[in-house]
Amino acid sequence: MIIPRTGIGVDVHAFAAEGEARQLWVGGLLWPGERGLAGHSDGDPVAHAAADALFSAAGIGDLGTHFGTDRPEFAGASGVTLLAEAARIVRAAGFEIGNIAVQFVANRPKFGPRREESQQVLSDAAGAPVSVTATTSDGLGFTGRGEGISAVATALVYPRLSESIG
Amino acid sequence: MIIPRTGIGVDVHAFAAEGEARQLWVGGLLWPGERGLAGHSDGDPVAHAAADALFSAAGIGDLGTHFGTDRPEFAGASGVTLLAEAARIVRAAGFEIGNIAVQFVANRPKFGPRREESQQVLSDAAGAPVSVTATTSDGLGFTGRGEGISAVATALVYPRLSESIG
Amino acid sequence: MIIPRTGIGVDVHAFAAEGEARQLWVGGLLWPGERGLAGHSDGDPVAHAAADALFSAAGIGDLGTHFGTDRPEFAGASGVTLLAEAARIVRAAGFEIGNIAVQFVANRPKFGPRREESQQVLSDAAGAPVSVTATTSDGLGFTGRGEGISAVATALVYPRLSESIG
Repeated sequence: MIIPRTGIGVDVHAFAAEGEARQLWVGGLLWPGERGLAGHSDGDPVAHAAADALFSAAGIGDLGTHFGTDRPEFAGASGVTLLAEAARIVRAAGFEIGNIAVQFVANRPKFGPRREESQQVLSDAAGAPVSVTATTSDGLGFTGRGEGISAVATALVYPRLSESIG
Repeated sequence: MIIPRTGIGVDVHAFAAEGEARQLWVGGLLWPGERGLAGHSDGDPVAHAAADALFSAAGIGDLGTHFGTDRPEFAGASGVTLLAEAARIVRAAGFEIGNIAVQFVANRPKFGPRREESQQVLSDAAGAPVSVTATTSDGLGFTGRGEGISAVATALVYPRLSESIG
Repeated sequence: MIIPRTGIGVDVHAFAAEGEARQLWVGGLLWPGERGLAGHSDGDPVAHAAADALFSAAGIGDLGTHFGTDRPEFAGASGVTLLAEAARIVRAAGFEIGNIAVQFVANRPKFGPRREESQQVLSDAAGAPVSVTATTSDGLGFTGRGEGISAVATALVYPRLSESIG
């Protein structure tokens, strides 16, 4: 019997100050004309939450563990790059990836029209289905005030068959 | 081997202004004497988070995708009605529903005495077990200030057997 | 076919007032020199969220249901004690525990160096793998202002084999 493992990932990024020249990356996509997020990498909270949920499900740490100061080559990496590398690390640890689901909370960008495009980019990166949904917080809290974007993700992984019977 | 898929749903609703004549619906139940929530539908954050988690697990969009302006017949629908329709859509897309779990964060209503009743109403709507739990945010944030209710849900779905072997 | 069940748990605790003599317990560990959390028990939001996720997955209530005023012997219990008792109750209800995953959001404590230690303590308490990860909310909201700690957990449980075929 193969028992899957569940994981959870939360990521929050603040919008950059008004007038600061940063691009907005959310869900693996560039959103032209939108105010960008602050942060050292491309600040994509959807991709970061997805990667953290994968690490969490496998029980092998988090973004800080794997992309911290020990690996400076990832210092400015895009969220899609981080997600692809997280998936590689999780598979190297002996797991298959079932799926990843992310929901982000923000007033903008307006996500619906580009949802399919975002899911395709992230699923390609993870090598597994990634679903992305969006909602607002009805004007409440920091997301409601437009100060930032919050994302929460779950993931299912399961031990690779050859290892679980080997 | 049948691999289940996990999904996540978040929903936040603000309380209506003091003195505004709205009823409070949470967890599929009417809470007499409590201040209602703002919103176009009955504003039930527990039912909405549950429906969003189902859509998320199936990878077929979210509440906005399915109950947006294209389907005006759902404009004023109750949370229970939306959850039942979400479950129907997810099954029509080829999935069985394992279970749904929702936790909401709010100072009120006092949920414990009616938890079983709420779970029964939502489980009947979804045609699958729905568990509902409640907590507070210890006085912090918008839920702690009594400005609104936040709910987060997970769901497991799996491909229908006849389709996965057919 | 054994279908697992997913659960979710959220827990928030406020930091105690400056100068109040309380210890900080997070992830089953004591953090010397850090400001403690307010609360009646040891206030460990990671252990509490993990226990709530277990109850949620089994569909048998929440912390308030099981450790409320009916069981005064748990009034001052540590988070690790509550998690161990939650696991016992869930197993007594006919479930095996697959795994639990928790992520907490806070500016402090700095978790990475003690993650393995925390996971060991909580896994021993639950009798199943518990993964713990940490992040910040990028300066936003009550966690960003250092007012408290928020934790969110998922858990997978599944019906015990002897009962599902018996």
